[in-house]
Amino acid sequence: MNKEVVRFGVSIDEKLLESFDKLIERKYYTNRSEAIRDLIRASLVEIKVEAGNQEMIGTVTLVYNHHVRDISDKLTEHQHMYSDRIVSALHVHLDAHNCLEVLVVKGKAKTIRQIADELIGVKGVKHGKLVMTATDTDMH
Amino acid sequence: MNKEVVRFGVSIDEKLLESFDKLIERKYYTNRSEAIRDLIRASLVEIKVEAGNQEMIGTVTLVYNHHVRDISDKLTEHQHMYSDRIVSALHVHLDAHNCLEVLVVKGKAKTIRQIADELIGVKGVKHGKLVMTATDTDMH
Amino acid sequence: MNKEVVRFGVSIDEKLLESFDKLIERKYYTNRSEAIRDLIRASLVEIKVEAGNQEMIGTVTLVYNHHVRDISDKLTEHQHMYSDRIVSALHVHLDAHNCLEVLVVKGKAKTIRQIADELIGVKGVKHGKLVMTATDTDMH
Amino acid sequence: MNKEVVRFGVSIDEKLLESFDKLIERKYYTNRSEAIRDLIRASLVEIKVEAGNQEMIGTVTLVYNHHVRDISDKLTEHQHMYSDRIVSALHVHLDAHNCLEVLVVKGKAKTIRQIADELIGVKGVKHGKLVMTATDTDMH
Repeated sequence: MNKEVVRFGVSIDEKLLESFDKLIERKYYTNRSEAIRDLIRASLVEIKVEAGNQEMIGTVTLVYNHHVRDISDKLTEHQHMYSDRIVSALHVHLDAHNCLEVLVVKGKAKTIRQIADELIGVKGVKHGKLVMTATDTDMH
Repeated sequence: MNKEVVRFGVSIDEKLLESFDKLIERKYYTNRSEAIRDLIRASLVEIKVEAGNQEMIGTVTLVYNHHVRDISDKLTEHQHMYSDRIVSALHVHLDAHNCLEVLVVKGKAKTIRQIADELIGVKGVKHGKLVMTATDTDMH
Repeated sequence: MNKEVVRFGVSIDEKLLESFDKLIERKYYTNRSEAIRDLIRASLVEIKVEAGNQEMIGTVTLVYNHHVRDISDKLTEHQHMYSDRIVSALHVHLDAHNCLEVLVVKGKAKTIRQIADELIGVKGVKHGKLVMTATDTDMH
Repeated sequence: MNKEVVRFGVSIDEKLLESFDKLIERKYYTNRSEAIRDLIRASLVEIKVEAGNQEMIGTVTLVYNHHVRDISDKLTEHQHMYSDRIVSALHVHLDAHNCLEVLVVKGKAKTIRQIADELIGVKGVKHGKLVMTATDTDMH
């Protein structure tokens, strides 16, 4: 954890800074540096997603009706097929019919997207969404 | 579960249908109806998100460094503040420093976004993302 | 134009700054301040879009087949209906069949979205997309 | 224009269809087929953007302060550098200080993104956004 914290200056119009300070308050950031670092990391993640070939972490959110025949089996089967990629899963019983499943997937952006597509494509899955993030050294 | 399945026809150019069939294969859908229903539900979710005042379900993905002072306490505190909204949480140890936390949040789109903003704003959270989905009766 | 330029400092891990400097180079920014200001303004625009009730500027991109009966008339009619909102239009002949039309629309985010939806919904419009930006005083 | 229109059936729950019909009305679509075709084309465009190497059309929206030294010259210079890619441009005087410029760019998704990044990176450009669309044969 021998991370070196450095400092750099940003020149900015007074009014733009005022608007940013309001945004910081609204978004509950402790201070400007914290907010700026988050903006920077979000841009880095975006570029990694575009690149497609970098190691990332994906969260796949699935909503499905558990009454649909064989859907749990099919989802489980898919997850085992990618057991080296799917790190963990969270299951929530939303109501009498609907389940929410959140899967954490590791791999290249392209692989993660493919796994997400396969799961969202399973008959009975009503809605699915994928978000990606990263944790490599340059995200310190 | 007395859901009535109905049928409607879609007129489409042959070539556009060919491209769609390729997309269906690529996205692992079983058939056209399954793919069309998913497209419809995704549009409905989008409109609900825009509206802001409808009950939805959010998945908040957070990446943070657990070495940052008090971060776990702060995250836990925030979650308890919204304990009636935060349904469930999944924690993954990504590496020696980084944790991934996925929270399932219920509420109006605006409330979910606010909770997500608060959590992402916590000092030490490196990156956060929110996706929303819905499960109400019109998402059958 | 008596804009006051001020300066503030950002503390950041050395490695994260290195990654940011690579991003700056890749995105062709002249310097860090320029890149940071763009990130800040992009966040402000996002919040304005979410809010829905603030004055913004939208660019609507439409692709359509000009052979479809009455499509030009219908698009023109829609544009005149909102003549106080639609500032300007650009028309490009893409190929023998396809036209691209880009409209610049002024108004509240919600109004802009509605105008865009109406235009994209016109029979014969194949694809449409809306982006929003802002120019008010806090975007200096 | 010897396009063959074909027809296929979609089976769907009655309630989901009701919600879709409301969406169709809200989005001003003439009929279900028109709405479905738009959803399909939007998915195809998304996949092309992800692929990166397919011919597309981009619309780049730029907001800038024309008082910034040399900004018009720099933007013009960049545009001439890519004169074989930049098809057309629309300029709007937003207010005393701000200009909006919309550029239509043709090329591979990756090239379009690079041109957009370069333009957005020009000193004085406050905000920029890129959207992509497609017109090839499979978008009939």
